[in-house]
Amino acid sequence: MLEELKARVCEANLELKRSGLVILTWGNVSGIDRDSGLVAIKPSGVSYEDMRPEHMVIVDLEGRVVEGEMRPSSDKLTHLVLYRDFPEIGGVAHTHSTYATAWAQACRPLPCYGTTHADNFRGEIPVTKRLSKKQLQGQYEFETGVAIVRAMEGLDPLHIPAVLVANHGPFTWGDSPGAAVENSIVLEQVAEMAWVSERLRTVYGDRFLKPIGRELQDKHFLRKHGKDAYYGQ
Amino acid sequence: MLEELKARVCEANLELKRSGLVILTWGNVSGIDRDSGLVAIKPSGVSYEDMRPEHMVIVDLEGRVVEGEMRPSSDKLTHLVLYRDFPEIGGVAHTHSTYATAWAQACRPLPCYGTTHADNFRGEIPVTKRLSKKQLQGQYEFETGVAIVRAMEGLDPLHIPAVLVANHGPFTWGDSPGAAVENSIVLEQVAEMAWVSERLRTVYGDRFLKPIGRELQDKHFLRKHGKDAYYGQ
Amino acid sequence: MLEELKARVCEANLELKRSGLVILTWGNVSGIDRDSGLVAIKPSGVSYEDMRPEHMVIVDLEGRVVEGEMRPSSDKLTHLVLYRDFPEIGGVAHTHSTYATAWAQACRPLPCYGTTHADNFRGEIPVTKRLSKKQLQGQYEFETGVAIVRAMEGLDPLHIPAVLVANHGPFTWGDSPGAAVENSIVLEQVAEMAWVSERLRTVYGDRFLKPIGRELQDKHFLRKHGKDAYYGQ
Amino acid sequence: MLEELKARVCEANLELKRSGLVILTWGNVSGIDRDSGLVAIKPSGVSYEDMRPEHMVIVDLEGRVVEGEMRPSSDKLTHLVLYRDFPEIGGVAHTHSTYATAWAQACRPLPCYGTTHADNFRGEIPVTKRLSKKQLQGQYEFETGVAIVRAMEGLDPLHIPAVLVANHGPFTWGDSPGAAVENSIVLEQVAEMAWVSERLRTVYGDRFLKPIGRELQDKHFLRKHGKDAYYGQ
Repeated sequence: MLEELKARVCEANLELKRSGLVILTWGNVSGIDRDSGLVAIKPSGVSYEDMRPEHMVIVDLEGRVVEGEMRPSSDKLTHLVLYRDFPEIGGVAHTHSTYATAWAQACRPLPCYGTTHADNFRGEIPVTKRLSKKQLQGQYEFETGVAIVRAMEGLDPLHIPAVLVANHGPFTWGDSPGAAVENSIVLEQVAEMAWVSERLRTVYGDRFLKPIGRELQDKHFLRKHGKDAYYGQ
Repeated sequence: MLEELKARVCEANLELKRSGLVILTWGNVSGIDRDSGLVAIKPSGVSYEDMRPEHMVIVDLEGRVVEGEMRPSSDKLTHLVLYRDFPEIGGVAHTHSTYATAWAQACRPLPCYGTTHADNFRGEIPVTKRLSKKQLQGQYEFETGVAIVRAMEGLDPLHIPAVLVANHGPFTWGDSPGAAVENSIVLEQVAEMAWVSERLRTVYGDRFLKPIGRELQDKHFLRKHGKDAYYGQ
Repeated sequence: MLEELKARVCEANLELKRSGLVILTWGNVSGIDRDSGLVAIKPSGVSYEDMRPEHMVIVDLEGRVVEGEMRPSSDKLTHLVLYRDFPEIGGVAHTHSTYATAWAQACRPLPCYGTTHADNFRGEIPVTKRLSKKQLQGQYEFETGVAIVRAMEGLDPLHIPAVLVANHGPFTWGDSPGAAVENSIVLEQVAEMAWVSERLRTVYGDRFLKPIGRELQDKHFLRKHGKDAYYGQ
Repeated sequence: MLEELKARVCEANLELKRSGLVILTWGNVSGIDRDSGLVAIKPSGVSYEDMRPEHMVIVDLEGRVVEGEMRPSSDKLTHLVLYRDFPEIGGVAHTHSTYATAWAQACRPLPCYGTTHADNFRGEIPVTKRLSKKQLQGQYEFETGVAIVRAMEGLDPLHIPAVLVANHGPFTWGDSPGAAVENSIVLEQVAEMAWVSERLRTVYGDRFLKPIGRELQDKHFLRKHGKDAYYGQ
C-alpha cells in the first residue's frame, strides 16, 4: 500500500545520507498521505546502505503499525504530533547534523543573519524548552512533539519549517518528505554560517551580531515563497 | 545563438557545483559577448544535475530575454549592472559559499592577511553598504548592483574582482565566466583562512591581526598579473 | 588461525580509514577471541590501501606474537591491558581523529552536552592523567593502558566505551572490533559538536555551557542499550 | 633524463592534490638527484588534471633549466636554497593548506601540543621573520629560502622538516619528494588540531595551552625515527 509515498520517503531518507547530514543509522524522514491519514516512516536503526521502499513502515496517526515488518523509527511519536498539529505539512525530517545540533545543545534559537537564512526561513528558528523530569519519564517522544508545537506557537509552520529541540537537535518539515530534507540541508548550512559570523562580530567591539531587518527578511522569503514569488521556473 | 558562450557559462556553473561552493540550486554564473552586448546566464532555481548549455538564457543589457525558454536567474539585474559599469569584465559569479557569506553577514570587509589573498586580489575585499528600506522595496537586484559599484569606487575591477554584499554574500567577476568562478573559489579559501587566522591573534594579546604590507601585497599580485608577471606558462 | 576474527579486524581497520578518522598509516583496531585469549591486531605502520585479513597479527595477552609475519601495532600493549582489565569487551580502536584529539591535547574530559552523546556514552568521557617521566621511560604503551584503566575506575566500560589519553588521543572499545570503530566515529562527532557548542555559550554571558541532566542522559542511553532498549530492530 | 626522479616528483605533486592540500594550480613539489645535483620540479601554474612525468622541469642548483619545455615553478629559487643548505634532504613541498597557512598568516610558530605532532616533528615548527622591503624587492624567492634557513638555525632539518613562512604559508621537506608531501599532510593535520585545542584552553581560565614536555616529545619522535625506532615494519 502507498507504494509511491514509501518510494518518496525512502528516497528522502537516502538523500539525508547523501547530503552528509547523518552518519551510521542516524536520522529519519517520514511522509504522510493526508487522504488516508497514514504515515510512511523509516524503520528504526537500520543501515542506509541497502534501504529500499518496501522497508518503510506504515503507521496511523495514533502510532499503530498498519503495514511493515520492521519496527518504526523510535522518534515516530514526535513525527505524529507534528502531522496532527500542522495540517499543512506533508513530510518531517530529523537529523543530528553538526551545527544545527550544536545550537540545539546550547539551547539557543538560531538568529537570521543573512539572506541565505531569509530565503528559506521567515525569521529566527526557535528552540524548545527543556523537557521536565516528568515529561522525560512519560511518553518522551510524544512530549518532544508537544514541546515543538509550543515553541512554534504563533508561527506559520511553512514559513518557519524547522525547530531546534533543546539539548537534542533539529526537526524540519515541509509540504513533502523531500522538502523536509531540503530544509534540513539549508538549516545545517545557515547554522554553520551563523556560528562563523558570530565569531567574527567581536572585531568591532559589539557584544552581539544583529539579525537582519524585517524588510530584507521578507524581501528574500517572498522572492521564493507565496503568490508574488519570482525565483525558480 | 552564442553557442560557445552558452557552453562556457554552463560549464562555469557546473564548476561552481563541483567545487563545493553551492548546494541545491543556489548560485549563478553569467558571461557576456561584448560585440553583441548579450549576456548568457543560468536559469533561475534549476537543478545542476542535468544542466546543459541550451538551458542558458540570453538577455540583453536591459534585462530583456532574447533567447531561452526558462526564466533567467533572479539575480540577473545585479549581473547586468556589473557588465555595464565594469567594461573590462567578461563573467560574473554569485554564491552563498560558507565563509565568504559569513564575512558578508558580519558586514566586514575581508582583510588581506597573506600571500594567498595577495596572489589573487590586490587588497582588501570591500563590503557594500546595507540597502535602505526604499532600495529594498524598489528594484532590489538592480539596487544591489548599484551598491556593489559604489563599494568598488576607486578600485580596478580586475585587481579586486570580488565584493561582499552586506548581509547577503559574495559576487565575483573576471575576464571570463571561468575566471569569475575561479575568483569565487579563491575568495572562499581566503575568507576561511582569514577567519582562522583572526581567531589565533589573541594569543599575543593584540586586539587585531594586521593586514600585510603594500610591498608584499604588490609583489605577489604582480607575480601573477600584469606585464611583469612570471607565474604560469 | 582465527580467520573470521582476522577478517573482522581487517574490515574494522578499513572502516576506520573509510570513515575519515585516520590518514596515512595512522590508527589501529584489534579484536579478541575470548576462548583462546588471542588477539588479532593491525600490523604497525602499514598502508591501508592493500591491507588484507592475512596481514593481521595474532598475539597472546602477554604480547607474544603467535602468528603473522609482520610486527604488530606499536600500541599493542595498550590494547592488551584493556582486554585484561575489561573482560566484557571484544574490540579496541585507536585514532588521532581531529576533534577527539584536540580535547585530549587540552587534557579536558568531554562533557555530555546533548542526546547525540547520551545515545552512545552514559556520561562524560574521561581523560587520563599525564604520564610521569618514569612511566614515559618505562613500558610506555603498557603504562598508557594502566592510565586508561585508572581513568575508568568506577565506570562500566560498555557504558563509557571511550577515553581520551592526555596529550595523545582517543581509545575506544566495544563488544566487537566493529563496535569499537563505531564508538570512535561517534566520539569524533560528539567531540566536534561539543567544541562548536562551547564556542556559542558566551553569548548568554555564562562562563560554562552546562552538561545535560542525568534524566535526559539516562533516557537516551537506555533507549539504545540494556534490557528496556527500544531503538533498532 | 632522470626519468625515475621525474616520475616520483610528478606522483608527489599529484598526491598533494589528492590529499586536498591544494586547489586550482597551487602548490609545488620538487626532488633532487644528489649525484648530478639536478632538481626536478613542477612547472609553474599548470593544471593537475593532466600532469605527467615528462612535464617536470629539470634545473641545476643555480636555477638554470637543463631540460623541459615549460617554465619551472616560480618558487624554484626557494627550493634550491633548501637543497643547498640542507644536504640531507631529497624533496621539498610547498602548499597553501588552510590551517598551516592560517598560522603562517598570524606569524606564529606552531607549538607541539600532542603526540600526533611529536610523532612527526621533534618540537615546535618555526616561523620565519617577515621579509624586509629590500628583500621583497630583490630576489624574492631566493630571500624566502634564506629566511627559512635562518629560522631553522640550530635545528636538524630531518627532525623539524617544516617551516611556516610569515604571511605566506608552509614549506616542508624530507628525504624524498613523497616524504616531503607526507610532512605537508601531517603539518596541516596538526595545525588544525592545535588551533582547535587552543580554542578549548580558556575553559580552565589558563591564558595559554602549554606544549607537551620534552620526554613525551622525544618518546614519540624516537618511536618512529632513528636507530631505536620500533614503529613500522
